[in-house]
Amino acid sequence: MNAKARGPIHKRIPEGDSRERLVCEECDFIFYDNPKLVVGAVVIAADGRFLLCRRAIEPSKGLWTIPAGFMELGETPEQGAAREASEEACAEIEIDALLAVYSVPRISQVQLIYRARLGGGERFAPGVESLETRLFSWDEIPWSELAFPSVTWALRHFDEMRGKTEFAPRLNPEKT
Amino acid sequence: MNAKARGPIHKRIPEGDSRERLVCEECDFIFYDNPKLVVGAVVIAADGRFLLCRRAIEPSKGLWTIPAGFMELGETPEQGAAREASEEACAEIEIDALLAVYSVPRISQVQLIYRARLGGGERFAPGVESLETRLFSWDEIPWSELAFPSVTWALRHFDEMRGKTEFAPRLNPEKT
Repeated sequence: MNAKARGPIHKRIPEGDSRERLVCEECDFIFYDNPKLVVGAVVIAADGRFLLCRRAIEPSKGLWTIPAGFMELGETPEQGAAREASEEACAEIEIDALLAVYSVPRISQVQLIYRARLGGGERFAPGVESLETRLFSWDEIPWSELAFPSVTWALRHFDEMRGKTEFAPRLNPEKT
Repeated sequence: MNAKARGPIHKRIPEGDSRERLVCEECDFIFYDNPKLVVGAVVIAADGRFLLCRRAIEPSKGLWTIPAGFMELGETPEQGAAREASEEACAEIEIDALLAVYSVPRISQVQLIYRARLGGGERFAPGVESLETRLFSWDEIPWSELAFPSVTWALRHFDEMRGKTEFAPRLNPEKT
């Protein structure tokens, strides 16, 4: 995508559309603002422990998360989830299945969360966005210090799907 | 989202980032350009026939598609798929399961395609983006006049999943 707009940007309904968009008043270039995709993975080591990262940045700085982040242009969701594991935990992962599709319409976000194994000799280390990376057994997971509700959902959904190779991806739990 | 940028927009790497973004040179507002989500559904009537729409707009004007389009802000993917069926075929649909997740990294697009039943008394009609809407039995599907490869994939994946209530969403077929 090239930077096409050179004039001021205003919000208006373009011709033939039904919704307000950000439009350059000089060249009519339209910035379509669409929901953002987050891609991530519940990653386990060969001994069944979970790879979690303690966040070095806001929001939820200091709390634990699975490797996840905004999908970038030009990649598949699986490549994006692997990139996030590399960036946040310096880890190589092997993606197995789509575990969950969560949506947060309030902030126009859709999350695709995969089930993955820790590869690359099980090496991992904090990336620039992490204070700490660690493997936790199920009983050690710091449930009260997880960064986002969807991290809790993803870990619980992983647990429900253990041993299953063919299953529908989980959706938001009730009462959210 | 408010129209925050008032100055010229250029492509550069913002501080602390690793990728080029569109940035307003006056106020540093960053336009993150992320992959777009398409949401749609394979919709069948009670007699098992498929609801298809003949496109009134480019790309692939005149060819047949399932109801699908870009997800909008503030909706869930399921709401978006239902909205597209309403806009393109004036149809009410009842979503049953996530059928497929297709990705087209070349154009930074991810598609979430659902399996759905035609509801609302099975009424349907062409919306403004459709020339014609029609129900087709499996043998009547105009395979050589489908608008996009992913329409073909979705119909074939629907056929593979008939009768299954719990299944992993299908991905891009090999060789695409």
